[in-house]
Amino acid sequence: MRTEISTLGEFGLINHLTKNIKLTQPTTLKGVGDDAAVIDNSGKRTLVTTDLLLEGIHFDLMYAPLKHLGYKAAAVNFSDIYAMNGKPQQITVSLGISKRFSVEELDEFYAGILLACEIYGVDLVGGDTTSSLTGFSISVTCIGIAEDDKIVYRNGAKDTDLIFVSGDLGAAYMGLQLLEREKSVFGGKAGFQPDFSGKEYILERQLKPEARKDIVQLLAEHEILPTAMIDVSDGLSSDIIHICKQSNTGCRIFEERLPIDYQTAVMAETFNLNVTTVALNGGEDYELLFTVPLSLHEKVSAIPGIHLVGHITKPEDGYRLITRDGQEMDLKAQGWNPIEE
Amino acid sequence: MRTEISTLGEFGLINHLTKNIKLTQPTTLKGVGDDAAVIDNSGKRTLVTTDLLLEGIHFDLMYAPLKHLGYKAAAVNFSDIYAMNGKPQQITVSLGISKRFSVEELDEFYAGILLACEIYGVDLVGGDTTSSLTGFSISVTCIGIAEDDKIVYRNGAKDTDLIFVSGDLGAAYMGLQLLEREKSVFGGKAGFQPDFSGKEYILERQLKPEARKDIVQLLAEHEILPTAMIDVSDGLSSDIIHICKQSNTGCRIFEERLPIDYQTAVMAETFNLNVTTVALNGGEDYELLFTVPLSLHEKVSAIPGIHLVGHITKPEDGYRLITRDGQEMDLKAQGWNPIEE
Repeated sequence: MRTEISTLGEFGLINHLTKNIKLTQPTTLKGVGDDAAVIDNSGKRTLVTTDLLLEGIHFDLMYAPLKHLGYKAAAVNFSDIYAMNGKPQQITVSLGISKRFSVEELDEFYAGILLACEIYGVDLVGGDTTSSLTGFSISVTCIGIAEDDKIVYRNGAKDTDLIFVSGDLGAAYMGLQLLEREKSVFGGKAGFQPDFSGKEYILERQLKPEARKDIVQLLAEHEILPTAMIDVSDGLSSDIIHICKQSNTGCRIFEERLPIDYQTAVMAETFNLNVTTVALNGGEDYELLFTVPLSLHEKVSAIPGIHLVGHITKPEDGYRLITRDGQEMDLKAQGWNPIEE
Repeated sequence: MRTEISTLGEFGLINHLTKNIKLTQPTTLKGVGDDAAVIDNSGKRTLVTTDLLLEGIHFDLMYAPLKHLGYKAAAVNFSDIYAMNGKPQQITVSLGISKRFSVEELDEFYAGILLACEIYGVDLVGGDTTSSLTGFSISVTCIGIAEDDKIVYRNGAKDTDLIFVSGDLGAAYMGLQLLEREKSVFGGKAGFQPDFSGKEYILERQLKPEARKDIVQLLAEHEILPTAMIDVSDGLSSDIIHICKQSNTGCRIFEERLPIDYQTAVMAETFNLNVTTVALNGGEDYELLFTVPLSLHEKVSAIPGIHLVGHITKPEDGYRLITRDGQEMDLKAQGWNPIEE
């Protein structure tokens, strides 16, 4: 018997593979299913998250400069720790490298990793360096710290909670579309340098994203503890559904409230893409998506750079998008990761 | 300017890439350079180790059954935690998988991971599943726990300390040679089933190695705290040099004391290989190599399955092998990982 992986899809496959996992260690407070695992070491809580990035799937060395790639590989893992309301403190970086790489190129990559570490206050503490017969493989694991009563999981959202997201959505996806187009225009020649002026923001969002350490700090300063939180990696649509499924709730997202940058909107127009779809499903935004009780409405809304985009509902109300003209549509969870291809 | 990676070698590359790392977090007690990083979370210490295994480099799906591969991927990471005198408690497993895999095959792999977790008392707490355009990639990170005053680093060996190793050496390497030969005899046909009777031990050492949890427990029961410890992954020769370099010592290893199983010796003879070279440089033994003060000689020697193989010397005495006929030779650090190819 042979079941093709494509029949399950990304999230189905993860569910299938993890459904038989039993936790047995008293120190394991949270296993799979959130942005990071949570471990009790008799003191503060240890958070652990990990990512595997593969050439041709997650990045294209044709247009991703190695320094940026290193920066991004680190930042997206920090983002997972922030999404638990924790502080990233250490990372390990394992690399599978092929002969075509030079030491100088690896140095570039490491410079990006170390720059991110410096900016976010994280130590690089280990890893594994191995040869690869094929593409460049990057595995990053991040260890964070948090106080037990400050950890924010995905499963704490309640009916009537408000849904906020930081920054704006869809820019990283439009940056990727732009890079893909220029790559095909330039016929796959390495080192192509098209004119990207006026498009810097969407390119930076794709190539060198930041983790929202600042938002976590702002929330702490304002003494706001979200009821649920996730970082937007798959796209707002998938990620709010992750929160709703784990919290056993529904949600309503308002199209008119989706925060979208001007460059994102212009580029979506150029590519003849629906900008709402881009904002909902583009992914790789690494913004923080979180819920707070209705009573905190004014307090949270007063923080600059955080946008109210909807509210939590009862589970039977489903996952809904309210369009500009008042129609209701189903939100769909579309894993960004093209595992079925 | 382009420097080929091969000019540095495996250990040279690691030194090059890690030499600029500065540790800034007070919680980081130990960064790169040992079997695991050590982190302070105000309670017990957290240990972190990670490995990246790539198809065609670390394993060959032609002869490595997926269940065994999963088991091994987990066990070799547990081994790194034991080598710090810690207890593995959690792992994360990230996979890069290609279309040619079926769900059933992934289930086999996971069954191996979960079997190892069950046997060693470890929880699988996270990971990342992604598609791969090329081979199968496996990244495992293990989190362990230890009490601060019980952690054993590589850098504590002192002149006159005795060097012990558990189990026997070289068997995993001979298992690999046997598998490679049968693969070439069978012309690369999948599912080949040659007669391996009488060779089970060396095959199991290669395909399904165990981590020496039992040795760590025995040492604790006998109240023995090694001065330095490492697990034998690159080969005794490389690994004792790791200890000596970090401890600023030399060493003397006695050829006649190297523990070698009968099957290993027979197979080395068959392949016309020098069995001492196999035992010193074969790698993947996952035995524990450790040093203790001379005063503990009788106490440690009384523990079954642990073998005295040499002693620590002053740094100016170098890393030396004393052959059966009393000659002295230099031990050489040969990374097992074929990064230069």
